Amino acid sequence: MIHYPKGIKKTQTIKLKESFSKRGMILEDDINITNQYYLDMDIANIHKKPTPITIVNVDYPNRSSAKITEAYFKTPSTTDYNGIYRGKAIDFECKECNSKTSFPFASIHIHQIEHLKRVIKHGGIGFIIIRFKYYQEVYFIQADKFIEQYDNYPKKSLPYQWFQANGHLIPFSLTPPIDYLKVIDALYFKETTHEK
Amino acid sequence: MIHYPKGIKKTQTIKLKESFSKRGMILEDDINITNQYYLDMDIANIHKKPTPITIVNVDYPNRSSAKITEAYFKTPSTTDYNGIYRGKAIDFECKECNSKTSFPFASIHIHQIEHLKRVIKHGGIGFIIIRFKYYQEVYFIQADKFIEQYDNYPKKSLPYQWFQANGHLIPFSLTPPIDYLKVIDALYFKETTHEK
Repeated sequence: MIHYPKGIKKTQTIKLKESFSKRGMILEDDINITNQYYLDMDIANIHKKPTPITIVNVDYPNRSSAKITEAYFKTPSTTDYNGIYRGKAIDFECKECNSKTSFPFASIHIHQIEHLKRVIKHGGIGFIIIRFKYYQEVYFIQADKFIEQYDNYPKKSLPYQWFQANGHLIPFSLTPPIDYLKVIDALYFKETTHEK
Repeated sequence: MIHYPKGIKKTQTIKLKESFSKRGMILEDDINITNQYYLDMDIANIHKKPTPITIVNVDYPNRSSAKITEAYFKTPSTTDYNGIYRGKAIDFECKECNSKTSFPFASIHIHQIEHLKRVIKHGGIGFIIIRFKYYQEVYFIQADKFIEQYDNYPKKSLPYQWFQANGHLIPFSLTPPIDYLKVIDALYFKETTHEK
């Protein structure tokens, strides 16, 4: 609930709503802004990996520049984000969910599931951030809990209620927009937080 | 020293030599083979990041395929390799060195140096793998030691002798070709090794 100061014009309210709505479509941007904030504030070192592509042809119009003229997207073999926080390896994937009833398992590639299994096995903190657009809710889900369902749940998608019960709601803030390290603090570093 | 069984033909020896020589030019391939070995043997989960590019134009000749027709290489803001080993975040850059007397600091981008500083600060294991082609030697160099020189050494390149004295020679083996985790075991996990 946002309380506007007196005298604010209606148009501004509409703009704000639009911006909130647009925000819904760009979870990835919000995560990137959050990671940049963590980097700038010296809290963590977490980056988005570049999109994996296969380069087929490159033109060199002059010595100092190169233009890729033919390339194709590759199936990702790992998750999109990783880095370091408080000495621990951090590794996660983020996904938007359009459905208001369930999250389709097919949204996450089998290679990414295998990768997250290895992350856990080797002692990293693996998780998934899922945004349910309809509810404007962003959940932090520990990878082991999600993978248990991925491997055993009898249907092709996991109900929204499962995320409510097993995920951790990440409250929306402005700086940073998606403060997922707060959840990590609570789950993995109970004694302290990153805000000192 | 390789001992050939009787009856092996000269041509095969030459081919082997060529392959060793070619190996010299492809440190990155050897690191990738090594990482795949670590992955297959469930020793570590370490990957090369995709090359960072800016995509300008994509053609969609049909619904299921996408062809990138214009893209450009970006300056890397992080190192090329990272992952997890024994619960620790691993982060490194690898470089070939053509000079037999010194390694030019300019070979490593300032952003990568800043990144490695953050890796160390947040508790990860950061390092550089440098191959001196002339000597067919591959060195493991702890990032903090290298950065100390990068920030203070009065010349534009660091002498080969410095690497001999401060680096850790990674012996060449076949599986995996560049077993850098052995150096990490010795430096960071003195009590045990990954070979049990």
